[in-house]
Amino acid sequence: MEIKGFRFSAVEAAIKKPGRLDLALIESVQPAATAAVFTTNSVKAAPVLLCMERVAVGPIRALVVNSGNANACTGRQGMDDARETARLVARYLDIDEEEVLVASTGVIGVPLPMDRITVSLYPLVRDLSAGAGLEAVAQAIMTTDTFPKMESRQGRVDGKPYIIAGVAKGAGMIMPNMATMLAFIVTDAAVELEWLEQVFSAACDVSFNAITVDGDTSTNDMALILANGVAGNEPFGAGSEGAAEFVDLLNEVLLSLAQQIVRDGEGATKFVTITVAGALNDTQAKKAAMAIANSSLVKTAFFGQDANWGRILAAVGYSGVTVDQDRIDLHFDDVLMVSNGVFAGGDAEERGSTVLKQKEFSVTVDLKLGMGCATVYTSDLSREYVSINADYRT
Amino acid sequence: MEIKGFRFSAVEAAIKKPGRLDLALIESVQPAATAAVFTTNSVKAAPVLLCMERVAVGPIRALVVNSGNANACTGRQGMDDARETARLVARYLDIDEEEVLVASTGVIGVPLPMDRITVSLYPLVRDLSAGAGLEAVAQAIMTTDTFPKMESRQGRVDGKPYIIAGVAKGAGMIMPNMATMLAFIVTDAAVELEWLEQVFSAACDVSFNAITVDGDTSTNDMALILANGVAGNEPFGAGSEGAAEFVDLLNEVLLSLAQQIVRDGEGATKFVTITVAGALNDTQAKKAAMAIANSSLVKTAFFGQDANWGRILAAVGYSGVTVDQDRIDLHFDDVLMVSNGVFAGGDAEERGSTVLKQKEFSVTVDLKLGMGCATVYTSDLSREYVSINADYRT
Repeated sequence: MEIKGFRFSAVEAAIKKPGRLDLALIESVQPAATAAVFTTNSVKAAPVLLCMERVAVGPIRALVVNSGNANACTGRQGMDDARETARLVARYLDIDEEEVLVASTGVIGVPLPMDRITVSLYPLVRDLSAGAGLEAVAQAIMTTDTFPKMESRQGRVDGKPYIIAGVAKGAGMIMPNMATMLAFIVTDAAVELEWLEQVFSAACDVSFNAITVDGDTSTNDMALILANGVAGNEPFGAGSEGAAEFVDLLNEVLLSLAQQIVRDGEGATKFVTITVAGALNDTQAKKAAMAIANSSLVKTAFFGQDANWGRILAAVGYSGVTVDQDRIDLHFDDVLMVSNGVFAGGDAEERGSTVLKQKEFSVTVDLKLGMGCATVYTSDLSREYVSINADYRT
Repeated sequence: MEIKGFRFSAVEAAIKKPGRLDLALIESVQPAATAAVFTTNSVKAAPVLLCMERVAVGPIRALVVNSGNANACTGRQGMDDARETARLVARYLDIDEEEVLVASTGVIGVPLPMDRITVSLYPLVRDLSAGAGLEAVAQAIMTTDTFPKMESRQGRVDGKPYIIAGVAKGAGMIMPNMATMLAFIVTDAAVELEWLEQVFSAACDVSFNAITVDGDTSTNDMALILANGVAGNEPFGAGSEGAAEFVDLLNEVLLSLAQQIVRDGEGATKFVTITVAGALNDTQAKKAAMAIANSSLVKTAFFGQDANWGRILAAVGYSGVTVDQDRIDLHFDDVLMVSNGVFAGGDAEERGSTVLKQKEFSVTVDLKLGMGCATVYTSDLSREYVSINADYRT
């Protein structure tokens, strides 16, 4: 799949263990309108700080990303290393270094191995190609991910076809805001920047910011979209023909990537869609849904395939949102487990247990107080999650 | 150990598996001034709602408590069952039913087995004794606890000796506010009620509300103190002789019980004291300390004995408190791991790893922004925690 005007590349720079891609490059042949959402963590990695500066200023030509090292909590040296990486890429591409973004993911607190990175940057630029390269980028940004995460959609505007394609990595330390760790979206459509910023941010809210694996927000999270306009359409924005379709496709790509991240949650054996309806407003609904999704007791019950709905009600109760415990209904898929705050009785226990034995199921809580509604996506908490994270650095 | 004017009793009512005490009674020979702190969960179990009513009204003569069933999310039936339990105890003791409190802990959402409870209440009352009974109460309130939790101190006021003694249960679903699940304190000292409420609430804040095992706040948490005045002293309060000593002893008892709960955290292999200093104020310090203590990534690193300080800085960063990432210092015990936001270097990695191999250690974060300080206590997150909670109801 070719996305017009973009080239990709990935190499082994020996930042991770041998035999794994760990340094990647995305290049646009012309300056791309770029929107981004960054981690809300007050402790931000050097590349996040650098990207915040540069995305605010102007169009972007290239993004270099490494896995295996987060370049976080690395102080002044970390900023110097991020800038130096961008500077070298800019030199090899013969572009302005302010047009180059840098992203990192991996272990916190260890300086980047700049010797190995700098010698790898020239081959990285030399090997840029338009073809199958996006999948190599998806592979190069993996850390504890078990599969590369990609999605794409094709649209048409002004009679011109365009593509929206993205890659993401996730697995652990996954929680809004920003939930992704890293997601890079490219499109050859021409899009008005201000409108792109709005629709990208909105799409992130219901995708990357609606997933949680372990409730930990990373220092390195970022989601970026580069729109280079090589498709040749007239730039479109709010109310333009084609805008609605673009938003739909963008939402599909982001939601797919976000759900792939949850499906690949560290040690995950279940994919659970949690909806809270009937809240006073959408904000309260999302708060309650996230409380359920982040509860260690709820997540271990999912892992144990135990229809322990009491823990879900308890999580809603401590979420801080307005509830009347005597009105709450709860479903596992289409099985009514709780009616007006008490066990629904009958064969609900057996039928609920059957639902939880599936690999994917939904939990729906109706507070019956208002019109607020939100959906979030999460995984279970398994022994394997503990094993992965107990031994992450060894 | 005899606490004057109190009698205790515990029986097997077959609410839990055979061979385990699961129903207990504490009785005071005369009405006791009673203060309490209850769960902040909006979903409150029936016994919590009943205790809130009765503690607000007046002195208390008896507390009946069962384990194995939380009587939570049981609707109107649950309230009827709690009242009926109190009514029967009151009848056998020949006291007013409004003077009887009820507490429950265990599985949520299942009606109390009232047939088994009602036939057990008469032997429970008949077997009341002043002697070794408090330990039996500590055993009867255990669920996933692996040891009974008790503590006591002796004081003296007006030349009269008195005792403060308490029991608690914990293990999982442990998080402020209220963190304990259940804690019952008795004292034969005579204490002014209003002052007792103040000092008990304050002591809970730095003990039961400063611990977390899994960040889940239960529907059933409560801490109660009954002061029956049988010691014979003049009731004391703010500024009275003996007040300062009473507060010290009360704090010691509560802190010991709280720490026992963390030590017995489900699957816990580590006991970790987390202090955040240099925050803008104490509230921010506690918020940051709790973010560290509740981070799944931090807790799995503790389990893995991995000196992964980056996860601790990340948790401080997303806690929402004011931080300057370039000023943060971090110690494991007395080993400086992070200085001004970056790795301290030298042999810190090896020395830090040695600290984490201990069963107990401290983590101290200095934000260097102000005078705010707080200490909380937590455990690690082990594969065993997942196993316990995946299979809790089976």
